[in-house]
Amino acid sequence: MHMTTEAAVPTITGTVPPALILAAGEGHRLNGVNGGSPKPLTMVLGLTLLERAILSCKEVGVLEFYVVIGYRANKMIPYLRALEQRLSVLIKPVENPNWRKGNGSSAISAAPYITRPFLLLMCDHLFDPAILRLLLTAGTNTTDCLLAVDSHADRVFDLDDATKVQLDGDVITGIGKERVSFDAVDTGLFLCQHSLFDALEIAQDKGQYSLSAGLVELIRNRGFRAVTIGTRFWFDVDSPKSLGLAKKALLRSLSKPDEDGFVARHLNRPVSRRISEILVRTPINPNGISLLSFAVGIVGAVMFCLGGYIWTILAGLVIQLSSIVDGCDGEVARLKFQSSKFGGWFDTILDRYADTAIVVGVSFGYWLAHPHAAVWLGAIFALTGFIMASYTKKEFVIRYQSNPPGGLFARLIKRDARIFAIMLGAIVNLPYEAMLIAGFLSHIGIGLMLIKGHRRTA
Amino acid sequence: MHMTTEAAVPTITGTVPPALILAAGEGHRLNGVNGGSPKPLTMVLGLTLLERAILSCKEVGVLEFYVVIGYRANKMIPYLRALEQRLSVLIKPVENPNWRKGNGSSAISAAPYITRPFLLLMCDHLFDPAILRLLLTAGTNTTDCLLAVDSHADRVFDLDDATKVQLDGDVITGIGKERVSFDAVDTGLFLCQHSLFDALEIAQDKGQYSLSAGLVELIRNRGFRAVTIGTRFWFDVDSPKSLGLAKKALLRSLSKPDEDGFVARHLNRPVSRRISEILVRTPINPNGISLLSFAVGIVGAVMFCLGGYIWTILAGLVIQLSSIVDGCDGEVARLKFQSSKFGGWFDTILDRYADTAIVVGVSFGYWLAHPHAAVWLGAIFALTGFIMASYTKKEFVIRYQSNPPGGLFARLIKRDARIFAIMLGAIVNLPYEAMLIAGFLSHIGIGLMLIKGHRRTA
Repeated sequence: MHMTTEAAVPTITGTVPPALILAAGEGHRLNGVNGGSPKPLTMVLGLTLLERAILSCKEVGVLEFYVVIGYRANKMIPYLRALEQRLSVLIKPVENPNWRKGNGSSAISAAPYITRPFLLLMCDHLFDPAILRLLLTAGTNTTDCLLAVDSHADRVFDLDDATKVQLDGDVITGIGKERVSFDAVDTGLFLCQHSLFDALEIAQDKGQYSLSAGLVELIRNRGFRAVTIGTRFWFDVDSPKSLGLAKKALLRSLSKPDEDGFVARHLNRPVSRRISEILVRTPINPNGISLLSFAVGIVGAVMFCLGGYIWTILAGLVIQLSSIVDGCDGEVARLKFQSSKFGGWFDTILDRYADTAIVVGVSFGYWLAHPHAAVWLGAIFALTGFIMASYTKKEFVIRYQSNPPGGLFARLIKRDARIFAIMLGAIVNLPYEAMLIAGFLSHIGIGLMLIKGHRRTA
Repeated sequence: MHMTTEAAVPTITGTVPPALILAAGEGHRLNGVNGGSPKPLTMVLGLTLLERAILSCKEVGVLEFYVVIGYRANKMIPYLRALEQRLSVLIKPVENPNWRKGNGSSAISAAPYITRPFLLLMCDHLFDPAILRLLLTAGTNTTDCLLAVDSHADRVFDLDDATKVQLDGDVITGIGKERVSFDAVDTGLFLCQHSLFDALEIAQDKGQYSLSAGLVELIRNRGFRAVTIGTRFWFDVDSPKSLGLAKKALLRSLSKPDEDGFVARHLNRPVSRRISEILVRTPINPNGISLLSFAVGIVGAVMFCLGGYIWTILAGLVIQLSSIVDGCDGEVARLKFQSSKFGGWFDTILDRYADTAIVVGVSFGYWLAHPHAAVWLGAIFALTGFIMASYTKKEFVIRYQSNPPGGLFARLIKRDARIFAIMLGAIVNLPYEAMLIAGFLSHIGIGLMLIKGHRRTA
C-alpha cells in the first residue's frame, strides 16, 4: 500500500506541472532542535520538511522536482538522491552558490531547467495538498502567476514575520513583510510562469535578490493574482516555537469533522493524536495499526468472556483503547502520505469483525451468569444492528453516490458511540444491557435511514 | 418509487430528442388474443405495447412523444390522454386518416410537428432501451439517419417477414423484406433527421406509401447508416405465436448473467420468471414483492424454530421459495419500468435481515436438541460470514469504484447458494451443519477478497 510501489516507474504527464522547491537556507533558528541539520531535513512527525513538501506535491500528481540547495549542499545531494529513489519521483538538485544573497537568487537558479508553468514552494511550509489543487485549477487558463493566500490573518502564527498581500479583486497590488494595511497573507505556495524568472532578473539587475523583490516587478505588470485558500491548513516553520505549534496544528488538521462522531471528536481524537505522534516515528504502517487496534479489541472481548466485575471493567477500558487506536491508522496514513484504498477497506472490515468479537465476549460473560438462549438472541439482535447500520450506509452510498442524510441520530449509532456505551456499561457492570440499547438504537437508525431514503426518491 | 412521481412536471431538455411512434395499424393477426383491441393496446406482461414503447424511450430521457394513430383513433385518443397523465410525459396524438395506405404515410403525417432530430419506432417492437442509447450516442455528430440493426440473423424469429439490410461499412446500401443477400436485420428503431420526411415525400410522389420506400430514397443519397446492437434484446410482435415467444424472450432478458449465481440462474430464475409473469398483472409493486419475499423468509425461520424433521424440511423449502421470490422484485421492476435506487437498496437490506432471521431459526431449532452456548457461537460465526461477505463486496465497490474480482468462489458464497445449501441441509436434517459450512465458506471468501484487493493495489 505504500505510494512508492504504486508508481514504481515515474512518468511525466504533460498536464501536471513540475515543482520548484526552495531548500537552500540554513534555518539557523531551528539549529537547537534539529541537531544542526540543514533546515529542509528538520523532522516533523516522522518526515523531513522536504519530504513533506515533495509528498504533498505528489498527492496532486507532481512527479518532477527541482530542488534548489545551498547551505551544506554536499549533505543535501546524497539525501535528494535517496529521496528520489524512495519516493519514485524525479528530483533534479539545483545548486545555488549565492544562496546567502536571498531566496530570489535561489529561485532564478532553476530558470535554465524549467520551460513550462511550475509550482513554486518553500520547503519550510506545511500545508494541505488541496491548496495545490486550487492553484492548478485556477491556473488552467491563465498566463498570470498565482499565489495562494490566506485571508484569515487571525489564524496566522507570528503575523509580524508573515508576508502580507494587498489585493484589488484577485489582482495582487502590493506585497511585503512590513505592510500595515493588507487583505491576506502569503502562504508561500505559487503557480508560476516563466515571467517570474524575468521579473527576478529585473530585480537582480537592481541589486535586489529576494523573491519578494521579483514579485514586486510582477505586480508592476499586473501579472500576479491571488487564490484564496479558505480554511485549509498551512503553517510556516521558522523557529523552535513555530515548529512545536506546527506539529500540533498538523495533528489537529487530521480530524474528520464530517465523519467523526461525538466521542471520536471529543475523547478519542485528542488521545489518538498523541499516540499517532509516537507511531509516526516507528516503521509500523497504517495497516499494521489497523491490525493492532483489532488485536486490542479481541483482547477486550476475551476479557469480557471471563466474567466478573473486575475483568468487565478492564475489558471495557481495553475496548475503548482499541476504539482510540482505531483512529490512529488513518491519522498515521495521512501524516505519512500512506493513505490507500486498500487501507480504508481493510480497516472497515476489521472493525466489523472486532464488533463481532466484542458482542460475543459481552454476551458470553453475561451468559455465564444467565444461561438462557435469549441471551444469544439479544447478542444477534445487537450484532445485526451494529453491522447493518454500517451496511445500510454503504449501500446508500453505492445507490445514491452520496452519504445518507446525517443528523444527531446518525452520529449516535456510529462505532465510537457504541463502543463508548459498552465501556460505560462495563464500568457499572451492565455491559450486556448497554450493548442491547446500542443495538436497539442502531436498528432504529437503520429504519430512519430507510424512511429518509424513501422520502428522497418518492 | 414509481417513475410517475419522480418526474411530476415534465420538462423538455434540448439534448434528448422527441420520439415518433407509429401506432396506426390494425394488427388484425393479433385480434384473436387481444380481444379485438387496436394492436398498440395489446397487453405484454402487464403493459400495453404502446406503454412499453413510451416507457422504453423515457428510460433514456425522452419526454416528448408524437404518436401516429389511425385504426380506431376514437378509442386511441382517450387512451393516449390517460397515458400522458399517468406517465408524466407529453404525448401529441397525430391522426393519419390514410393509415391503410402504408406506414410511410403515417410517419409523414407527423412532419409538421417535428423540427429537430427524433427517434422513430414501431409500437409493436419490444426492445432493450440500451439500443436507444446506442442510437443517441451515435447520433451526436451526424446529419445522417441511423437505423439500429441486428447482425445475428439467426436470432430473428420469422426471418421471412423481417426487413433485411445490406451494408457497405456502416452505410446502408439496400433495404427490403425480399432481399436474399443481406448483412443485418432492421430492428425498427431509428434516429432520424428531417431528411426522412423529404425522402418519404419523394416516394409518395411516386405513389409509394411504405416507410421502406422512403428509406430507399435516403439510401440513394447515402444518408442512411446502421448502428449494430450486438446481442441486445429486441422482438417484433406480429402474430399470436410471436407474441407468446416475445413474452418468453422478454422474461429471459431479465436474467443478470453477471450477477446471478449458479442456483439463481439454473433453479431460481426459471421459477421466478413464471411467478413474475403472474405478478406483473397485479398492482403489487417491486417493494411490495421485496417485503413478500422477506415475509416468506421469516415464515421459514419460524418453522425452523419449531424443530422436528418435518418442520425442518418444510422450513427448508419455504426459505428456498423466499429466495426464488427474492428474484421477482427486480424482474417485475424491470418489466414494468419501476426500477428505483430505493428499491434496490431496500431489497438488499431486507435480504440481510431475512438471513439473520434464518440463522436464528436454524440455530434455535438446533439448540432445542443441543442446548450448549457453542450453538450460538456457531450461529454468530455463520451470520457474520453471511453479512460480511456482502459488506466486504459493497465496501470494495465504494473504494475501488468497481466490483471485486469474481470467479467461482465468489459465486459460491452468494445468497442464492447459501440458502440452497441450508435447504439441502434441511432435507437431510442437517440445516445447522449446512449453515456452518456456508458460513465458513463465506469467511474464506472474505479473506480471498482481501488478499486479491491487496494484490491489486500493492
